Order: sequence, then C-alpha cells, then structure tokens
Amino acid sequence: MIRPAELIHRKRDGEELSHDEISELVLGYTRGDVPDYQMAAFCMAVFFRGLSPAETFALTDAMIRSGETIDLGAALGRKVVDKHSTGGVGDKTSLSVGPIVAACGVPLGKMSGRGLGHTGGTLDKLESIPGFRTELTLDEYVAQVRDVGVAIIGQTGDLVPADKLLYGLRDVTATVDERSLIASSIMSKKLAGGAQAIVLDVKVGNGAFMQSIEAARELAETMIEIGENAGREVVCLLTDMDQPLGAAVGNALEVREALDTVRGRGPADFTELVLDACAKLLALSDLGIDEAEGRRRAEAAVADGSAEVTWRRWIEAQGGTADESALPTAPVVHQLTSPVAGYVSTLSAIDVGNAAVHLGAGRRTKDDQIDHSVGIVVHAKRGDRVEAGQTLAEIHAATEADADEGARELQAAYAFADEPPPSRSVVLEVIA
Amino acid sequence: MIRPAELIHRKRDGEELSHDEISELVLGYTRGDVPDYQMAAFCMAVFFRGLSPAETFALTDAMIRSGETIDLGAALGRKVVDKHSTGGVGDKTSLSVGPIVAACGVPLGKMSGRGLGHTGGTLDKLESIPGFRTELTLDEYVAQVRDVGVAIIGQTGDLVPADKLLYGLRDVTATVDERSLIASSIMSKKLAGGAQAIVLDVKVGNGAFMQSIEAARELAETMIEIGENAGREVVCLLTDMDQPLGAAVGNALEVREALDTVRGRGPADFTELVLDACAKLLALSDLGIDEAEGRRRAEAAVADGSAEVTWRRWIEAQGGTADESALPTAPVVHQLTSPVAGYVSTLSAIDVGNAAVHLGAGRRTKDDQIDHSVGIVVHAKRGDRVEAGQTLAEIHAATEADADEGARELQAAYAFADEPPPSRSVVLEVIA
Repeated sequence: MIRPAELIHRKRDGEELSHDEISELVLGYTRGDVPDYQMAAFCMAVFFRGLSPAETFALTDAMIRSGETIDLGAALGRKVVDKHSTGGVGDKTSLSVGPIVAACGVPLGKMSGRGLGHTGGTLDKLESIPGFRTELTLDEYVAQVRDVGVAIIGQTGDLVPADKLLYGLRDVTATVDERSLIASSIMSKKLAGGAQAIVLDVKVGNGAFMQSIEAARELAETMIEIGENAGREVVCLLTDMDQPLGAAVGNALEVREALDTVRGRGPADFTELVLDACAKLLALSDLGIDEAEGRRRAEAAVADGSAEVTWRRWIEAQGGTADESALPTAPVVHQLTSPVAGYVSTLSAIDVGNAAVHLGAGRRTKDDQIDHSVGIVVHAKRGDRVEAGQTLAEIHAATEADADEGARELQAAYAFADEPPPSRSVVLEVIA
Repeated sequence: MIRPAELIHRKRDGEELSHDEISELVLGYTRGDVPDYQMAAFCMAVFFRGLSPAETFALTDAMIRSGETIDLGAALGRKVVDKHSTGGVGDKTSLSVGPIVAACGVPLGKMSGRGLGHTGGTLDKLESIPGFRTELTLDEYVAQVRDVGVAIIGQTGDLVPADKLLYGLRDVTATVDERSLIASSIMSKKLAGGAQAIVLDVKVGNGAFMQSIEAARELAETMIEIGENAGREVVCLLTDMDQPLGAAVGNALEVREALDTVRGRGPADFTELVLDACAKLLALSDLGIDEAEGRRRAEAAVADGSAEVTWRRWIEAQGGTADESALPTAPVVHQLTSPVAGYVSTLSAIDVGNAAVHLGAGRRTKDDQIDHSVGIVVHAKRGDRVEAGQTLAEIHAATEADADEGARELQAAYAFADEPPPSRSVVLEVIA
C-alpha cells in the first residue's frame, strides 16, 4: 500500500522513485484511489524536478498497463511501423505518408487525436471528407490495415486510460509542458497501439510545444530512451515549426494538399518532409531496405500513381468520398496582398494557426464546432521574394467579416526584409 | 473572472501575482469554484517558487476575508495581545503565560488547536483537566476574557475557513513546509482573532518544523512583515527545540508543570521562556511599560501568588477542577536510569515526542484517542552531569508493556559524552 503524499514529498525533494512506486501511483490514480489533487501536486513536483530515464519509462509502462493494448504486429503477422508528430500548424503529414508507405507494401495503422488550440488534429482533417468514418471497431481497424495497407482512426478500445485522465488534469494545472510527461504521454499511446518501429516528428518553433532546438532534442532523446527500454526502434526528426508546414492550414484545404502531395504536386517543404518520413519508415520496416532505397521507392510510388490509388482505396475503405470535388469549400475567399516589396523574413506559425482557429478551422475550447471548409493557404513563405500588391495568401472564410478579420490577423503574421533570411531546411536534425 | 490554470502557470514560471489575483484564487477555492487539484498544483508551484512579501500578505488577507473575524479589542475596549507557538515537544507555554499576564492586568484570549504527530496541542492538554470546556460561544469567550482576564478555547465561529481547507490539502500533497504558506496560515488566524500585538515563539530544532536557525529566522521575518502590512506589532522569539521544553511531555503532566511554573516552581528553561514571553507581551500591551518592567511585574505576579489565583479563576471559569489532585495519573510509572556516567550531550526532542505519542499522549492520525494521564518527565537534560544508575526520566504509562517499550524508545533519545556540550539558552534569538 503506497502513501501518495510520501511519494509526492520524495519527488518534490528530488529523490528518484522506484518502478513499483510510480506504477502504483499511476494505477492507483486510474482506479480512483489516488485523488486528482495528489496527482496534480505530483505533476507539479515533476515539472520542477523532472523524471529520470528509469522513472520516465516506469510512468510510460504504467500508463500502458492501465488499459488494453493492441498487438497489431501479431494480428498482421508483420512488423508494424508508426509515425507521430508532436503537432503543428498545417501538419497533414500522416495523410500523405500513410498511402505512400502502404503503396510500397508496408502497412501503417494509426490512431490519431483531435485538435485543440492553434494546432489541428488529424481526425478533424479526415472528417472534412464526406462520409469518412474515424470510428472503427478494433476488428475493422485490423482488417483494414491488413487489406488496404492503411487506416487512420480515432482511439479505439480502452487504450491508455491513465493518459487520458492525466492529460486532462495536466491541461488545467499548468503541467503540460514537461519533457518526461510529454514523452511518456506520446510513447505510451504508440507502444500500446503495437508499433514496433516509430518515426517521431518533433516540431520546433513558435507554433510548437518545443520552442527551442535544445528542448526538442531533449524530448527526442527521452522518447528514444523510452523506446529502447521497451525494445522498440525510434527515429526522431526535428522539424521546423516557426512557419506553417506546406501551404494549407484548415481541414479540407489540408486534405487537398495532402492528396496533391501524394500525386507529386505538393509544396516543396511538405513534400520533402513526407518523403523523408516515408524513407525512414520503409527503412525501419520488414522490407529489409536502407533509407536511400526507401526514398527511391517512396518517390516511385508517387510518380507511378500507386500512392494515389492507395489513397483512394483507403478513403473509400473508411466510407469517404475519394473524389476531391466532394470536399467542402468556403463561400468567401479573400486575397491578402503584400504591402511592400521585399523578402518574407517571418511567417509566424502560431499567428497563422490562431488566425485559422478564429476563422473556425479549429477549436478554442473542447466543445467548439469546426467548420471544415475554412482556412488559409499561404503562397509566400519565409525566404520568398514578393512585390508590392502580389498575393501572399488566400483566406477561406464563412463570411466577408470573418475574411476581413482573418486578413488582418494574417497580415500581422508576415514580416518583410530587404535581404532574404538564412535558408533553413524543414528537417532540422535527425536523432536515432 | 480569473483563470486558475493561468495563475498556476505564471506562479510556476516565477511571476508575481497581484493582490486581486491571489484573493480571487483563495476566495474561489473557499467557495468551491477552484477545485482541490488546481489549488494543490498552485501550492506545489509556491513550494518551488515561494511568494513575495506582497503575495504572502495577499494570501493572508484573503484567508482572513474568507470567513468571520473577531474584534476582541473593540469588545473589551482594550488593546489585545496574543501569543502563538509554532509547536514543539513539551510546549505548555500558553498555559503559564495566560494567567501570569492576566494577573498583571493584561487580558489574553487565545484560540488554540489540537496536536497531531510528535507535538502536542494546547486544547488536548487543557482537556486533561476534569470538566474543562474548550468549546465556548463567542459571547462566553469575550465575557471570560473581560471578566477573568484569560480564556483559551478551540476555534469558535467561522474563522479563516480557507486556512482549514488549505491546510487539509497541504497535509496530503507534501506542501506543508513552505515558509510563506506556514506564515500566512499562522498569521491569518491570529489577525482574524483580533490580536493587535503578537508574541510568536518560533521553535527551532529536530522537534520543530524549522530545523535550522536560518529557516526559523526567515519564517519569523515573513510573519513580522505580514504583521507590519496589517498594522499589527509582532515580536518573534526563536527558541530551542532540539530537546523538549521543560521536563514534562504529556497532557496532565504538562498541566501540572504549567501550574508549578505559575507558582514559581517550574523547570529553569521553561520558566525562563515563560517570563520572557510575559515580559514581551506586557511591553506590547496598553500598560505603557517597557520590557524590563514587564519582566519585573511577571516575576512579582508569580512570587506574590496572584498568578496562581488567576490560574484557579481561569480553570474554574471554563468549568474545570482547579485542584491538581483531580488530574488523571497513569497506573504505571517506570524509571529510566543512566547506563553510564557522563554528561547528557543530546536529548532528542523528536524522539521524546514520538515516545510520548506511542505511550498514548498524542495522535498518530486525526482519529486517535488521547490518554491524558500518560507521558514522560525528563529529569536529566542536555548538559546535565549524570552518574551510572541515576534516574534520567520517568515513563508514565497505561501498562507495564507500554512502559517497557517507552523506556527503550526514550533511552535512544539520550546520548552522553565525557565533556558537557556548549551551553545554550532556551531563547536563541529575538526578532522584532
């Protein structure tokens, strides 16, 4: 019988807790034996003291054991790979990566979440496709991954209930942004979902959780350690989130862009990230190929149309209308034009994200309804040369008033300079 | 409308909150609008970041405003003084100080608490007197302070409900031992009770909250600052709690010792502290005398028997039997003798306190029953020369087995040396 107050006290004083102690605390919390207020105090103590690698693994392990787990690999008789992003503005990577790697013969099953605040959620994006079902049973999910090669759904079954509880608590007690807590939250879901090899996209910049490359690196290392402890392979990409990823921000707009990218017609930065992630996933898969060969095959699947065929099969398998003309469109589209000639020196990801939320593309609170048709498409990004009067971006809005307000917000996201800023690749670093 | 999560976040990041923000947080918590888990996270953030003097005052002020207050001074038409101790082993100071200052013409009304753990509570001690009532109505309390000059009761009315809630929460979330939280908890109760001048006895040592003189000094300074902000006079005594205060530890035993001290026959260290506290209270009172004159008058009240007369009137006013032969006595009394010749180098306060709790003199948990008769009387204290076989202490117990166990525990509280330890006064420092 643990005494939670004593564990809080010891963590507060910088002591390391044992695997069993953390396990009992987390499982006791999930059962309701440890009250919210003790867990809140514990999380705040962790915020200040951190968790050791062993403690972080213990936390992850306990969260996994709090509920069901899925052994997707055993169900398919294959090694299963997964891909996860820490979340950013315009991040529709999974939508393009899934059908491409599936077209290369590697199954990808993924459970995703919804968006809150300035970062969008994969499920919200998919639900802009008429008819698309994000809720499948576990059997349907496994069957689709096996038969179609790709499935992206909401969480099914009772996976990692401790994380759901803990995340809700952290959200209202200012204990979200702690490295070990973030790492264990992400990794517990990936491991419980049965992934044997994982490519993690850790976003860095003003539109991301991690604002500095150092913080992102530490988070990446923590997640890799958890993976090692659990006997899984993990590769982390640290990617730029100082500006939005790709051009489209907003649900249906992003689905279009993801499909364009599967067809080889996507924006350069987004295409680069998608192909890089695909190459790493294929190299981690049971195909027995290296990353260069993975890249080659991913590019081929895009070029020969097999990725697009897989996209269509995937969307239809989940009940959606694959024809992109069925996607909702906004009634009002305004152009934002450049007030000056020069180079775009900044296109603030968080400002673009917030402008999109205000247009109705995202949620301010959990109960907000999303308008799938609205959003922003940026034509000029950091480093681009623009002339005065040239179109910088399109605002897709429900009303003229929203579009005007969106244009004002978006205008403030742009800054210009006489000289181009130093160029930067979308993939900043790879840690494995 | 405040957002508690935002306030927690800012405190966590080391920002100073405004008076209004702290006020709304505390009052919202008292109303039930701010849940326990947010307050727990806030307290843990405060543990790591501390509170500024302004924030500490805001917290104290909000706790006072959470409930009723008593203006004892207005009710009596006099300046009212109070005395408070942070708690220690064998600390029966208020029991002797009350009747002595009352005998000197200065009324002292005091609301006290019960003991938990190794430190005893004043109410528990008084309740060892047959018939003694610790629960008076507010009117009875005011009338007794006016007519008898002294009343010591349990908390009456709805004073400082926020402190009650907050203390209960801190107790189970490892956030008790933070200076600003301790200081505001003590001072809110003193100020709500109407004290205009306060003598605070801050215990220092292994039997106290504050283990170091530096920590005690900081707590004292924090409480003095709160007093200054509230326009009250505060004097702090930092006093030794490495060994028990006086000789008696245990409820009825301490009442006897308090009465002996009122009669001028108490142990030297305890008598010194009592007279020092009385001198300071009289100097702060409306008598218009200085501390030296206060000391002289306190000594005179003891010497001429007027303090004992006041003791008797006080005990009887609260329904108790003033005759000390009515106090309960333990059926078994064992002697602990010294195993060696030498000087007592240590008499550990916490060990004596815990031994007394195990005998039944205190509570391990809130629901424990107290045996008022049992306890310990130490005859040899730090610096005393003892011979082998000489009596060190008496154990007053309910059973032979308890007495044997108590003797073993008490033996471990003693350490001996060939040379006497450096001598130390019971009053280590005075801060005003």
